[in-house]
Amino acid sequence: MVRRRLTGGGALLVASFGVFAAAPRARARTEPVFPADYRSWVHVKSALVGPRSPAFATEGGIHHVYANHLALQGLRAGSFPDGSVLVYDLLATEEQAGITTEGPRRRVDVMTKDTRSNPGSAGWVFERYLGDDRDAGTLTTEERAACFACHSNRQSHDHVFSEFRP
Amino acid sequence: MVRRRLTGGGALLVASFGVFAAAPRARARTEPVFPADYRSWVHVKSALVGPRSPAFATEGGIHHVYANHLALQGLRAGSFPDGSVLVYDLLATEEQAGITTEGPRRRVDVMTKDTRSNPGSAGWVFERYLGDDRDAGTLTTEERAACFACHSNRQSHDHVFSEFRP
Repeated sequence: MVRRRLTGGGALLVASFGVFAAAPRARARTEPVFPADYRSWVHVKSALVGPRSPAFATEGGIHHVYANHLALQGLRAGSFPDGSVLVYDLLATEEQAGITTEGPRRRVDVMTKDTRSNPGSAGWVFERYLGDDRDAGTLTTEERAACFACHSNRQSHDHVFSEFRP
Repeated sequence: MVRRRLTGGGALLVASFGVFAAAPRARARTEPVFPADYRSWVHVKSALVGPRSPAFATEGGIHHVYANHLALQGLRAGSFPDGSVLVYDLLATEEQAGITTEGPRRRVDVMTKDTRSNPGSAGWVFERYLGDDRDAGTLTTEERAACFACHSNRQSHDHVFSEFRP
C-alpha cells in the first residue's frame, strides 16, 4: 500500500509496509488512504446514469456504493461513527443486444469520517482516484469543499446520499 | 429462519431456531435454505437487461451477483468447495431523466454446492424465490435440471457463469 501525503503544494509518496523501519515523519493532518479492501465490503446500492442525464459527462455509467462495517451502522442509524468509509465505484458500461455490462473503471470516490481531522466538514473528508489508480488522490482543497457543500443537502442523513437497499 | 423441505409432492415448513428441542426427523436429502445474510456477502458483478434483449421478459432489470466466502474462493480458483453459495438478485428498474435506479425485487436465484446431496449435478442445487419471499423455493425438479443443463455450458468454470470483477 502507498500512502499519499500532501506537503505544501507537492505530493509525497511514502511506501507503507505495516511496520516502519524508521520513525514516520510528523504529519499536519490525516490524509485519506485508498481502502484497498472495499470490494469485499457491503454493497449498498447501484444506479445507472445514461446519455439523457445532464450528469452523463461526469457520472455516465454504472455506479455501485460500498460501505465498511462502521458505515453500515451509520446507514442504519442515520449518523456515522468515526472510521466510517463509503465508496462510490463508477464503471463505464457497454451495451450489446439490449444487455448493459460493466466496462472499465472510470473512478473511485471515497468519503471517510474522521471528526478530529475534519471538524469543518462534519468529520467527512472526500477523495477521488481516477481509473484503477489507488495511490494518487486527485482532489484539491477547493474540490473537497465542493463535495461537502453538495453533501450538505443531506445533513439530515449525516451528509450521506445513499440509503441501504435491503 | 424457516427451512422448507419437500416431502413427496407437498411442502412442509419447519421452524429452525438453531437448537431443536425434539430430535429432527430423518431427511431424504438436503434442501437449500434461503441465505438470509447474502446482502452482506461480496458483490461479484452486475448487469442490466433492457427491453431490447430477448431475455427481457424473464430477466429484465438490474441483477447483482453475490458470493459467500467459499464461493469467492471458487471464483478465484475456478473450482468451488462444498458450502459455496451464489445469489442472483434481480430487481426491476425505473428510469427518470436518464437515470436508472433500482426498483422492487423480482426474484432471487440461489445456487449451492453440496456434492454429497447432489452428485448428479456436479454438486450444485438451484432454487428460486419470487419477489421478497425468503421461505418458499419455487423450482420443480425439472426446472432445477434445466438450470443445471444451461450452467453446464460453463463446465470449465465449475458451472458458474460469473467472474469476479475486481
